[in-house]
Amino acid sequence: MSQSQAEVELLDRNDPLGPKREAFRIPEGLIYLDGNSLGVLPRAVPARLERVIQQEWGTDLIRSWNLHGWMELPLKVGAKIARLIGAQPDEVVAADSTSINVFKTLLAALRLRPERRVIVSDIDNFPTDLYIAQGVNALLNGKYELRWVHKEGLEAAIDDSVAVVMLTEVDYRSGYRYDMRRITELTHQHGALSLWDLAHSAGAFPVDLNDCGVDFAVGCGYKYLNGGPGAPAFVFVARRHQAAAFPFLSGWMGHQAPFAFLPEYVAAEDIRRLTVGTPSVLGMSALDTALEVFDQVDMAVLREKSLRLTDLFIEQMEPLCSAYGFQLMTPRAHERRGSQVAYAHPEGYAIMQALIASGVIGDFRAPNILRFGFTPLYLRYAEVLEAVRRLEDVMRNQKWQEPRFQVREKVT
Amino acid sequence: MSQSQAEVELLDRNDPLGPKREAFRIPEGLIYLDGNSLGVLPRAVPARLERVIQQEWGTDLIRSWNLHGWMELPLKVGAKIARLIGAQPDEVVAADSTSINVFKTLLAALRLRPERRVIVSDIDNFPTDLYIAQGVNALLNGKYELRWVHKEGLEAAIDDSVAVVMLTEVDYRSGYRYDMRRITELTHQHGALSLWDLAHSAGAFPVDLNDCGVDFAVGCGYKYLNGGPGAPAFVFVARRHQAAAFPFLSGWMGHQAPFAFLPEYVAAEDIRRLTVGTPSVLGMSALDTALEVFDQVDMAVLREKSLRLTDLFIEQMEPLCSAYGFQLMTPRAHERRGSQVAYAHPEGYAIMQALIASGVIGDFRAPNILRFGFTPLYLRYAEVLEAVRRLEDVMRNQKWQEPRFQVREKVT
Repeated sequence: MSQSQAEVELLDRNDPLGPKREAFRIPEGLIYLDGNSLGVLPRAVPARLERVIQQEWGTDLIRSWNLHGWMELPLKVGAKIARLIGAQPDEVVAADSTSINVFKTLLAALRLRPERRVIVSDIDNFPTDLYIAQGVNALLNGKYELRWVHKEGLEAAIDDSVAVVMLTEVDYRSGYRYDMRRITELTHQHGALSLWDLAHSAGAFPVDLNDCGVDFAVGCGYKYLNGGPGAPAFVFVARRHQAAAFPFLSGWMGHQAPFAFLPEYVAAEDIRRLTVGTPSVLGMSALDTALEVFDQVDMAVLREKSLRLTDLFIEQMEPLCSAYGFQLMTPRAHERRGSQVAYAHPEGYAIMQALIASGVIGDFRAPNILRFGFTPLYLRYAEVLEAVRRLEDVMRNQKWQEPRFQVREKVT
Repeated sequence: MSQSQAEVELLDRNDPLGPKREAFRIPEGLIYLDGNSLGVLPRAVPARLERVIQQEWGTDLIRSWNLHGWMELPLKVGAKIARLIGAQPDEVVAADSTSINVFKTLLAALRLRPERRVIVSDIDNFPTDLYIAQGVNALLNGKYELRWVHKEGLEAAIDDSVAVVMLTEVDYRSGYRYDMRRITELTHQHGALSLWDLAHSAGAFPVDLNDCGVDFAVGCGYKYLNGGPGAPAFVFVARRHQAAAFPFLSGWMGHQAPFAFLPEYVAAEDIRRLTVGTPSVLGMSALDTALEVFDQVDMAVLREKSLRLTDLFIEQMEPLCSAYGFQLMTPRAHERRGSQVAYAHPEGYAIMQALIASGVIGDFRAPNILRFGFTPLYLRYAEVLEAVRRLEDVMRNQKWQEPRFQVREKVT
């Protein structure tokens, strides 16, 4: 191996983010390369939830909406996320699921381009984004062309007939990262609006929504933001669009005066109009505390570590690619890479099961992708080396051929 | 007072649901008449959440989707709710918020009556239901007449032009309970579909959705089901409509094969098609455990106690109505009453604040309603007497006139 154990240990010792690992509860002996699917538990979260359950729900009960700020949680959490994605605090709110937030923002964006009839996306976008667009189109009598294209054809697909370009910044399988600035500029040159899904971006590296001129964005709370399984998602609407972003999912929490209980819906003036029903207080509270881990984190430093981790992994994997036929799916160019690395392999499913059994957790994505996520807040360089060593062991000793690793279960 | 302390204590001693109180953590000294806004904490919930947080999220991480059945939670919780509302286990799923579930079911129902152009509801329906219908109508180019009527005009409003009659079974302010069977039959006689919101019904008394022939229903997890603040809501679709209930909110969790990651949406054959994004595991788990309290509860016995509690409260309040001008808003007829009692009073806001300060929690609903919810699983008859005694004290000593009780806060 080209980088020795000693060199890697030096990297860990000098890692400015090294102490952050202590903020997480990493299971003993586990190498967790799946923070892009479910982030690990921040140590401060259980105490917060204990307080929410026992004191706020258990003792103060209904009074907690005011007493403990339950009402303000969606905006408070949104403001914390805003800092990580280059938005103003009043441009982001935590709410519902990513899928539902795609629905809200896509509808709002289409309404701002009423004369246009094309929605552009990447055919390899995370399926739920495409499914939601299909649902939206069915709702609007199929009047839209859903122009799903491969990455190499994306720019050519954006023309003056396009209403919205909706993309996930980082491809959930390959880890390919779009040039958000370039695509957003191109989108605007053609008079269309941009909708970015930050599922694999928020908390993984600095995002500059406003600097790139993005119109709408959504993202996930349970991946790099570590908010826990099924954590609330978030939604961004640029200030300039907020007054015109009509909330078709017009629930009482988005009303100008929810507690006036008026029969007529009047949307809140601000980003609150993107909220719908009563928020999950447990989920919001966990995410609120999880986000504290990012306090004082310089996102540029985080990105630097992320690239070093993925560089190291790619480098260490080279001999395995030659020996066992792994095919790198992730761009080598830093600017085109998220915080994950993917390999194609025809036996990918069984190999991943065997690797998991050896204590290295990554995940598998159909049809043949082994996916490894690298969360700079808690991963060590030494773990990258050890993960590859264990994968090498799985391959050399053909452990993946054990029958138990061939049985497919649903995986997330 | 017509019913003595001793008589009431006898009622408590002979209460078949009396032992159920032990399943809840009732704050010491508090009389909680607000379970229709937020149910109290079931004692088994903190241990379940501790396990979900530490073991499932903290240790087993992403593997918990299979290992701890996270994937199945929405259906498992739905099946438990089904028993309480007269539905089959495969007709109910826990998902999202009540508002979002109204959106899904209203759209699905309208699509089943494409030639009709009227939605009927009660102008005093909980506002979010009306707001969602407004949003749906805006989305469909305003082609629907939103026929919002007062209760006395409801039956006359249902004619052959109506697509959907959407009502909340129990009025959130007055506690008036609709005749679900009669209204559903009338709805069907006119060829329309019924959509019932069970926010103040599920867990409060037996509901017989299938026996009444109901088409669609939604409901809330955090009121009488005690699932915790912002708990997941639920949605019911009668089997006969499931194949045709198109999920316009077409997210990946409702796909026939979510983990095949296909670009084309194909709705699940079953009730799962009403789910959208990744569910809140914390919220689902809390609700799942909270529902265990209903094991072996005979809902007819629950209803009997509910009526006795509200009868007792109404009876005890009579002298206060005469002396201080409270006006009963809730029907005296049992079959027209939910599990709450409401009074109008011009100083309702301040009176409720003073009552809360005295340790009796009810809530206030604009413009002038004092609302008291009676949860038969944990309330004692003696508490009803004591609550009225304290309200009498608030009134006799004009405690509500203290300036601190006049300042309006947002209340839920």
